[in-house]
Amino acid sequence: MPEPEPTVDPAAWVCPVALRDAPNIVMGHGGGGAMSGELIEQLFLPAFGPAADAGLGDSAVVDIGGARLAFSTDSFVVKPMVFPGGTIGDLAVNGTVNDLAMAGAVPKVLSTAFILEEGTPLDELARIAQAVGTAALAAGVKLVTGDTKVVDSGHGDGVYINTAGIGLVDERTDIRPQRARTGDAVIVSGDLGVHGVAVLSCREGLEFGTTVASDTAPLHGLVAAMIATGADLHALRDPTRGGLAATLNEIARAAKVGVSIDERALPIPSQVRDACSMLGLDPLYVANEGKLVAFVPAADADRVLTAMRAHPLGARAAVIGSCVGDHPGMVVARTALGGTRVVDLPIGEQLPRIC
Amino acid sequence: MPEPEPTVDPAAWVCPVALRDAPNIVMGHGGGGAMSGELIEQLFLPAFGPAADAGLGDSAVVDIGGARLAFSTDSFVVKPMVFPGGTIGDLAVNGTVNDLAMAGAVPKVLSTAFILEEGTPLDELARIAQAVGTAALAAGVKLVTGDTKVVDSGHGDGVYINTAGIGLVDERTDIRPQRARTGDAVIVSGDLGVHGVAVLSCREGLEFGTTVASDTAPLHGLVAAMIATGADLHALRDPTRGGLAATLNEIARAAKVGVSIDERALPIPSQVRDACSMLGLDPLYVANEGKLVAFVPAADADRVLTAMRAHPLGARAAVIGSCVGDHPGMVVARTALGGTRVVDLPIGEQLPRIC
Repeated sequence: MPEPEPTVDPAAWVCPVALRDAPNIVMGHGGGGAMSGELIEQLFLPAFGPAADAGLGDSAVVDIGGARLAFSTDSFVVKPMVFPGGTIGDLAVNGTVNDLAMAGAVPKVLSTAFILEEGTPLDELARIAQAVGTAALAAGVKLVTGDTKVVDSGHGDGVYINTAGIGLVDERTDIRPQRARTGDAVIVSGDLGVHGVAVLSCREGLEFGTTVASDTAPLHGLVAAMIATGADLHALRDPTRGGLAATLNEIARAAKVGVSIDERALPIPSQVRDACSMLGLDPLYVANEGKLVAFVPAADADRVLTAMRAHPLGARAAVIGSCVGDHPGMVVARTALGGTRVVDLPIGEQLPRIC
Repeated sequence: MPEPEPTVDPAAWVCPVALRDAPNIVMGHGGGGAMSGELIEQLFLPAFGPAADAGLGDSAVVDIGGARLAFSTDSFVVKPMVFPGGTIGDLAVNGTVNDLAMAGAVPKVLSTAFILEEGTPLDELARIAQAVGTAALAAGVKLVTGDTKVVDSGHGDGVYINTAGIGLVDERTDIRPQRARTGDAVIVSGDLGVHGVAVLSCREGLEFGTTVASDTAPLHGLVAAMIATGADLHALRDPTRGGLAATLNEIARAAKVGVSIDERALPIPSQVRDACSMLGLDPLYVANEGKLVAFVPAADADRVLTAMRAHPLGARAAVIGSCVGDHPGMVVARTALGGTRVVDLPIGEQLPRIC
């Protein structure tokens, strides 16, 4: 068993990052928008140097020992830890399961790493751990390795959870943002903005009455049903932090295509519309935790849509737009009034600590 | 690509954990000793239920897609983040690399997930990220996927890092604590207690002059050299939190063997002895981040020791004791004065936030 050879001499390698003098981390760096991207591009990737695989995306597909694996990680710091429809425990399982599923992988095993704040009640932790177990059972993944650290009272914030996961990718599957093509139909799997509104509705200082519950759910079963149609799925993403707007922009930029959507076609529940209008939010930017966006060839759109609607998690799937040759890298929406508007990548954080 | 079937009906499964009324998380739950074990056994495993693989240890060996993989995760919350000989960034890479190496795996890929506190200076973050990249390059592992979350100022603590890793395990390799046997020689790879003393020496309110630098290092090269001898390595562990005492107790319990060590044989540098005596610490309980303990058949001990001493990270390797038929599950030390003492599993946390 030979030791792997570094391809670059570690002793000779010098970090090329220009260390900045003044600025500090702000909440927006964690928002999944432009500032998050800048932190990765301008700080993490240069600092990691040749050890980083270009991209360092939501999930990676790697070949190890002859197996084609998807590998992904996510930390969860949602506040509050319990909200209508879910807990940080469900999110931690479904979030990583979904990152694997968006590469077309069948999720197999998860790790769970807890950072606990001194003073956190054990019964609260047990309920969250139970949610982790129940969600893993429902998703058919095994929890095989873990870690627990404790930080002093006043640091941390109750419970932070990191999960990492390994999934198996079929040889014939090649699903990634770069594969979106002009002409592709853009499909969402259901109602948008539900998770974000559910979390906000119970946040301290912001309580408002709503019956909206988080949509947190594992999506690999839905993806398997889509793959089973034989359609050539080009790109899949779950629009979490930064909402649909961030996801469409990410794919438009990665594939260098324009994305055109029709706002009237967006499945947005009236409670989400009302809450967003009250809070001054744009539902396109609100997080989802059990939805996906698919880019599929126009010729395959009908059968993919049919398969999605036959699955419980895709019952309200809808075509919302298409990839166009105009405005590559940009997302444009036709408004309800017949005009158009640019749907920008969010800069920072509209809703901090939503997952 | 069929969806994996849960083996138990999630809807019918009920968490068997008896939720406790009063107690809260205390620092000791993160110490890697008896309280950490209790938290796993009495809270996490029952709450996770059938989704958890029994054990939920430092690393798991799983078969996925025909490949035999080791999978491990660790979060790092060390305080301060920069200390003599290393940073939280080195620890985060080497810690997970070593958990994989202790299963006999060749580490291949790592994920990195940062939880950043609002207000953390970007230059500080860049230096830590650079340490991550440099350590990964030195260890020959690729950083392939990541995540960044930001928490409000006053929560978190600068930078927390989680890494998870995948390694490849040879078909012929079977190294795990349960395989330790009566008669095995117990070998440590070098000087003990160095990391803990290095971190303590610069901790606020506790500064003391010492030239001790952390021993943080990736150990898979040393392990490869040990495997290459052809010896039947039974068990390997890196004695981090809880030190040598916690590791020997873990293996003694897992394999139901007694462990007998000779205190005069322990390689403990005089600076570590002096610092421990000043602080009232027992060096057996102080953390290491670049050392391993090996349990090998007595007949193989000499060639393993020779191979270790020929490697830069094993130059001061020493046999410190053996597995005995007496006192199964218990560790006993012969003292310098010729007496014996029980080396207990630490209860809680001698040195909080050491990794």
